[in-house]
Amino acid sequence: MPDFSIGVDLGGTNLRIAAVSTEGDLLEKVTLSTKLALGRDHVIGEMCDAIQSLTGKYNQTGKFLGAGIGFPGIVDMQTGMLRKAANFPGWENYAARAEIERRLGFAKNEARVVLENDARVAALGEQWLGAARGVSNMAVLTLGTGIGGGIVLGGKIWHGMNGMAGEFGHVTIEPEGHPCGCGNRGCAEQYASASAIVRMAREAIASGEAPSLAKAASSDAGFGAKSIYNLAIQGDEPARRIFKNFGRYLGLLLADLVNVLNLEMYVIGGGASSAWDAYAPSMFEELRQRSVVYAVTAPTDPLGNSPGKKETAADAKARIERKTIITRALLGSDAGLYGAARVAALAG
Amino acid sequence: MPDFSIGVDLGGTNLRIAAVSTEGDLLEKVTLSTKLALGRDHVIGEMCDAIQSLTGKYNQTGKFLGAGIGFPGIVDMQTGMLRKAANFPGWENYAARAEIERRLGFAKNEARVVLENDARVAALGEQWLGAARGVSNMAVLTLGTGIGGGIVLGGKIWHGMNGMAGEFGHVTIEPEGHPCGCGNRGCAEQYASASAIVRMAREAIASGEAPSLAKAASSDAGFGAKSIYNLAIQGDEPARRIFKNFGRYLGLLLADLVNVLNLEMYVIGGGASSAWDAYAPSMFEELRQRSVVYAVTAPTDPLGNSPGKKETAADAKARIERKTIITRALLGSDAGLYGAARVAALAG
Repeated sequence: MPDFSIGVDLGGTNLRIAAVSTEGDLLEKVTLSTKLALGRDHVIGEMCDAIQSLTGKYNQTGKFLGAGIGFPGIVDMQTGMLRKAANFPGWENYAARAEIERRLGFAKNEARVVLENDARVAALGEQWLGAARGVSNMAVLTLGTGIGGGIVLGGKIWHGMNGMAGEFGHVTIEPEGHPCGCGNRGCAEQYASASAIVRMAREAIASGEAPSLAKAASSDAGFGAKSIYNLAIQGDEPARRIFKNFGRYLGLLLADLVNVLNLEMYVIGGGASSAWDAYAPSMFEELRQRSVVYAVTAPTDPLGNSPGKKETAADAKARIERKTIITRALLGSDAGLYGAARVAALAG
Repeated sequence: MPDFSIGVDLGGTNLRIAAVSTEGDLLEKVTLSTKLALGRDHVIGEMCDAIQSLTGKYNQTGKFLGAGIGFPGIVDMQTGMLRKAANFPGWENYAARAEIERRLGFAKNEARVVLENDARVAALGEQWLGAARGVSNMAVLTLGTGIGGGIVLGGKIWHGMNGMAGEFGHVTIEPEGHPCGCGNRGCAEQYASASAIVRMAREAIASGEAPSLAKAASSDAGFGAKSIYNLAIQGDEPARRIFKNFGRYLGLLLADLVNVLNLEMYVIGGGASSAWDAYAPSMFEELRQRSVVYAVTAPTDPLGNSPGKKETAADAKARIERKTIITRALLGSDAGLYGAARVAALAG
C-alpha cells in the first residue's frame, strides 16, 4: 500500500475528512456537518477524532505523511493562526494548528499539520488531479459567494509573503463601484460571484424591466444564481444580460491576471462557474480585448478548451505550443479535499 | 579576479555595455549612441564589437560567463526572437539571439547570450544590488513613457509561460478609460506614466483652469513631466492635483499587485518615479484602502520606507516582521545594466 495523507475541507456547512494516497487515490472519506453552534473546541474535536480514526486504519499499510486542512478564511502560514473567518464567529486569532497538533499528539519532526486557505488548496487539487493535471504553473478562481483564488507555481502553492497571494476577489475592477466588505470599492467579487449575480438580478427587478426575474424572485423561495441561470438558458433577455455582464467582469479580472502572471492555465471553479455557457462568450471577448498577453498567446479557439468538448487536434496543438488556456474546474468541491491532502504530503 | 559577465542596455537612444563581476562590481562601462537609422545590423555589430573588446580584456583574469541584453520590447524567451518593439522599426520578428551568438562566435555549451525585456532585467538589478538587495520576492514598476514591469521570485526573474509576466502597464484600472496602443482601454500606463502626466496637464490647460501650466507649456520648449513636477513643488494647485491623481492610479495598480502576488517589496523606478513626494501620499492612501493584503501587512509608517529617510528602529522592526514594503528604486538606469549582467551570470 502506498503512503497517504489526510485532507480536510473545513467548511461552514460540511466538515469532510479524507485519507488520500500519494498517488491520488481516495482511500476513505468521512462527511460530517460543521456544528459551529457548539463552539470551535467541539468542531476541532470531531475533526481530530475522524483524522485519528482514519490514520489508525490506514497506517498499518502505508506511512502517514500528515494532515492538511483547508479553511475559508485568512490563515497565517508562519504561526498556524486563523486570522479572519467571516463565517466562523469566535475563530479569529485562534492558534488552530497548535491545538490540532496537541490533540493529535503529534511530536515535533513527526507528521505535519498544515493549515491553508480553502481556495489555495482547491488550486493545488485541480493542479494535482483536475483540470490542470500536468500543468506546473496555474491559478484557480473559485466563484462562490465571494471569489477565492489560488496560484500554483512549479507544482506548489505560491503563498507570497504571508500566505495571502491569490486574493483575486479583491482586485479592483470598477474603481468607483460597489463597496466591498474589505473596505475597498469595486472589488471583483462584487461583480463576478454568485452574490453579484443575485444583486444584478435585484437591480434589474427594481428597474421594472425584468418581469420573468421578478416573477421568479417572488415565487421561488430559493431564488438565487441558479434560478437566474435557468431563466438565461430559456432565453430570458434580462437574465442573459446579467450573465453577459458577469462574463465581462470576469474577463477583465482574468485579463489582469494574465498580464501580471502569464501562467499556462487559469481554471474557473466554484458554484457560479457552472453557468459557463451563459458567460464564457463575453468573458473570452473581454479577455482578448483587454489582455495584451492573451492576445499574443491565446489558442485559436478558446472555447475548444471547455471540458465539455473532446480535445481536437487543434486544441492539442495549442496546448503543445504553450498558449494561455482558460478552462473549467473538474473536481468540484473535492478539489479542496484532494489539495489539502496533497499539501500535507508535499510538506511531510 | 572574480568571474564576470556582460550586461547590455539596448535603449532607443543609448547603447550601454558593461562588464560586471559576479560580486556586483562594475569593471568597465561603454556608452554608445544607438544608431537606429543605420539599421539593426549596424547596431548589433557595434554592440558585439564592444562585448568582444570587453571580454578580451577581462577574460585574462576571470571566467566570462555570458552576455545578457535588456531590450525595450517583447522578447520570446524560448526562441530568442524579438517580437514587438515600438521604437525599433524593422526589428520585429528578428532572430536577435542567434545573430548575436553567430557574431560573437559562441559555440554551443559555451558562454550564453540571454535576451530579456528591459523592465525584467531592471527588476533583477534592483533585487541584486539596489532597493531590494536581500529580498527574494519582489517586483519593479518602471514608470517612463509607459509602465514596464518585472517580477523576481526566489532571486530569479519570473518569466511566466512566454516571458510576458509583469505587463503591469496593461492592467485595466479604468474600465471605460483612455484607449491604449495595446487595443485595451484604461490601461495603467494611460494614468501612471510620464505620458499620462503630460496628457493630464494638457487636459487641465484645455479646461482653462490651469494658467501656470498653460504658461509653462507655451514658454517651455521641453515642457514635460518634469516641468509639471516643478510647478507642483512650487505649490501650483492644478499641477499638484495631477500628481495626486497619478498617485491614486498608481496606488490602485499596486493594490491589485499586492492582492494577487503578496510579495515582500514593490519598487517604483523610472523617470516619473522621481516625483515621489508629489504622488506618494495619495498612492499610499489608495493602497491602504484598496488592498486587503496591504491593510493587514503594511508597515505602520509606510513613508518611513522612502530611501530619502534613514531607517528608523520602527522601520527595521517592520522589515523584520515581513511587512509589505513599497519603496523607490535606487539604481536609476543602471538597474537594467546590472540586471542584464546578472541574468547572464545566473544562466552561465
